[in-house]
Amino acid sequence: MSKKLVHTPEGVRDIYGDEKERKTVVERLLLEKIRSYGYRDIQTPTFEFFDVFSKEVGTTPSKELYKFFDKEGNTLVLRPDFTPSVARCAAKYFMDENVPIRLCYQGNTFSNTSNLQGKLKEATQMGAELIGEPSVYADAELIAMTIEALYHAGLSDFQISIGNLEFFKGICEEAGLDEETELELREFISGKNYFGAEELLDRIKAPVKDKEALLKVGDFFGSVDILKAARRAVTNARSGAAIERLDTLYQILCQYGVEKYVSFDLGMLSKYNYYTGIIFKGYTYGVGDAIVKGGRYDNLLAHFGKKAPAIGFVIVVDDLLSAMDRQGTAIAGMEPCSRLYYTEADFAEKLKEVRRMRAEGRHVELLPADRK
Amino acid sequence: MSKKLVHTPEGVRDIYGDEKERKTVVERLLLEKIRSYGYRDIQTPTFEFFDVFSKEVGTTPSKELYKFFDKEGNTLVLRPDFTPSVARCAAKYFMDENVPIRLCYQGNTFSNTSNLQGKLKEATQMGAELIGEPSVYADAELIAMTIEALYHAGLSDFQISIGNLEFFKGICEEAGLDEETELELREFISGKNYFGAEELLDRIKAPVKDKEALLKVGDFFGSVDILKAARRAVTNARSGAAIERLDTLYQILCQYGVEKYVSFDLGMLSKYNYYTGIIFKGYTYGVGDAIVKGGRYDNLLAHFGKKAPAIGFVIVVDDLLSAMDRQGTAIAGMEPCSRLYYTEADFAEKLKEVRRMRAEGRHVELLPADRK
Repeated sequence: MSKKLVHTPEGVRDIYGDEKERKTVVERLLLEKIRSYGYRDIQTPTFEFFDVFSKEVGTTPSKELYKFFDKEGNTLVLRPDFTPSVARCAAKYFMDENVPIRLCYQGNTFSNTSNLQGKLKEATQMGAELIGEPSVYADAELIAMTIEALYHAGLSDFQISIGNLEFFKGICEEAGLDEETELELREFISGKNYFGAEELLDRIKAPVKDKEALLKVGDFFGSVDILKAARRAVTNARSGAAIERLDTLYQILCQYGVEKYVSFDLGMLSKYNYYTGIIFKGYTYGVGDAIVKGGRYDNLLAHFGKKAPAIGFVIVVDDLLSAMDRQGTAIAGMEPCSRLYYTEADFAEKLKEVRRMRAEGRHVELLPADRK
Repeated sequence: MSKKLVHTPEGVRDIYGDEKERKTVVERLLLEKIRSYGYRDIQTPTFEFFDVFSKEVGTTPSKELYKFFDKEGNTLVLRPDFTPSVARCAAKYFMDENVPIRLCYQGNTFSNTSNLQGKLKEATQMGAELIGEPSVYADAELIAMTIEALYHAGLSDFQISIGNLEFFKGICEEAGLDEETELELREFISGKNYFGAEELLDRIKAPVKDKEALLKVGDFFGSVDILKAARRAVTNARSGAAIERLDTLYQILCQYGVEKYVSFDLGMLSKYNYYTGIIFKGYTYGVGDAIVKGGRYDNLLAHFGKKAPAIGFVIVVDDLLSAMDRQGTAIAGMEPCSRLYYTEADFAEKLKEVRRMRAEGRHVELLPADRK
C-alpha cells in the first residue's frame, strides 16, 4: 500500500485518545477564563485572500505561506496567524464602534516551513484581542488574563516575560536610524548576534552613546528591578516613557495579584513587524518555544481601514499541552468511559440501563457480549 | 482600499457575535450527547495527501478539491469530508483492535465548487463513526444518537430518512448490471431523472421485471409501512434481506423511543460511492439540504489496509444553525455578559468587584468610564 495512504504529510498529525481528550479539556478551561473577561468568540475562514497576510501587514513571510487558487484565479492563503484576520473583521464589522471590542478565537494556523526545522506546520492556537483601548489598563488586562487562563488550565510553573518595543525604538530614533536599518538591527539583536549588530551600527556611523545603549538592550532582562537600570541607560524621552509604561503596568499587575509570574526583557523584539509597544511571551519548562505570544499592534487596524489601537495574544495550545505532559500536570475534568455488554436476548434491558446512566451524564459504551 | 483586504473569498465567511455564540453552544450540546455514547474525540489534519481522497475512495470528485503543494512537491488536499480521514486513522492506529471503536470529531471541510452553486466552501461538520461493528444494533445506535443529539441541541421538528443501498443493489445484481452501469443508474435515480434511467435500462436490455422494479425504487418513501410494499416489489434475496434489515432496525429504534423521528426512503442512493448498506439523511424545515448525512461503509477501511465494517454520520453544523435560526429555536445556556466601568481613581476597587463576579462564573467586561 502507498505510504501516502496511511500517513499524514510531514509536520501535521493525528491526535486521538487521551491526548486529544486532554487537549479538549485544556482548551475548554482556557476559553472559560477568557470568556469570563467578556471576550466573545469570532470565527474567521481557514483561508483568506493573500492581501490579508501580505508583506505590509508584517506577519509570516510569503515563502512560509501555503498558497493556492480558487476557481476564479484568486490567490488564497491558509492563515498563518489569527491577528490580521481578526483585525480585518474588527475593521469590517465594528468600523464605527467607539466602545472597546473584545474578541477571542480558537483554531489552527499553518506555516509552510521546511521539514528540516522540525516544527509543526499546523498548530492550534487560542487567542484574544482587545481593540480600541490604548491604555496601560488594557495591557494589564491581557497579561493578567493570560496568566489566569494558564493557571486555570492547570499550569503552575511559568513566566510571562514583558518587553516594550518603544524602548528600543526610542534609541533608534535618537540615533537617526531609518526603518529598514531598524528592522535589520532588530533581527540581529533578536538573534543575539551582537557582532552583526555592532558592525551594522559602525557602518551607519551611529552615535557612540546610542550604539552602546542599543548593544546593551539585550542585557535588560529579569525582575522588575531591571527597569531602574534601563531607565538610567537612556536619555531620550521616548525610551523613558516606555520604561514608565512598564512600571505602571507592573503596579496594575500587582493589583491583579499575578506579579510572581511576571518578568521583563527589553531585548524582546518579535519577528512580527505589526507589534508596536508592549510585547510579551510566556515560557514554561518542557518546551523551548514560547507558549504565549502577544503584544500591542496600534497600527495594524489602520491597514484594514479602521484607526484603532489594539493588543492581543495567542496561546500555542499544542506546545502548552506538550509542556503539561512533560511536567506530569494532572488535568481536571477528564470524563471516564464505562462499558456495558449486551446479548440479543437482553438488549432491551441493557439499553434501558445504559440510557439511564447516560441521562445521569455518564459516558457509556454499549458493546456486544461476544466482542469482549 | 483593495476589496481583497476587508472581504473574505466567496463561499467562506466570518461568524461573530450572537451567531457565533449560538454555534458554540449548539456544538457543545451535540458533542455532549455523542460523548455520552462513549465516542472519543479524534483530530485529523486539515490537509492530507491527495491519495486519501482519491477517486477509488469514492468521496468528493477531484475537481472540487482544494489542492496545493508542500515544499517537497507532494500534492496536498484540504479535507472535503472527514470519513476517509477517520478511516485512515482507524486503519493506522487500531489495526489489530477487535473491539468496536467509537470516534467522533468536529472541524471544517472544504469544497472548491463554483460560485454559481451558492454553497459554502468551508463548512463546519460534527460527526461520529462506529468501526468494527457490522450489526443492526450499530445502525440503530448511530441513528438514535443522531436524533438524540439534534433534540438535545434544541431542534424538535425534524425527520431522519433511512434507506438501504442493498435494496437497489439486489435488483441491479439480478438484472446483471456491471458496476459502472449501476453507478450511472444511481445518478439518474438520485437526480429523479427517470427518463434517463429508462433510456439506460432499455439500452442495456435489462429484464422487464427488473427495469420496472428499478424505476419504482424512488417511489418507496414514507412511514414504516412502505417496507411491506417494497418487499412485495422484489423477488431477489439480497433486496429481501435489505428490507428485513430495515424492519429490524425500526424495531430497535422503537426500543430507543425515537421512532417518531424516522421515515424510510429506498430511493436514497448518496453521491459518495463508499456507502454500502444502511444510509440516512436528516431534514428539517428552514433549509433545503440535509442537515445530517450518514451511512454504512463496510469496504472503505480495507482501502486503508484494515478489513472492518463501519457506520457513521456527520451533522452539517452551519445548516443546522440556519434552520434553528429560521425556526426561532431558543438556545439554552447562552451566557450573558455584564459591564462594569472604572476611572483611574476607583480602578483598584472595581477590579476587586469584577474579579469576585468572574470567580462566580459570570462574564464581565471592565471598561473605562469615559468610553460609555
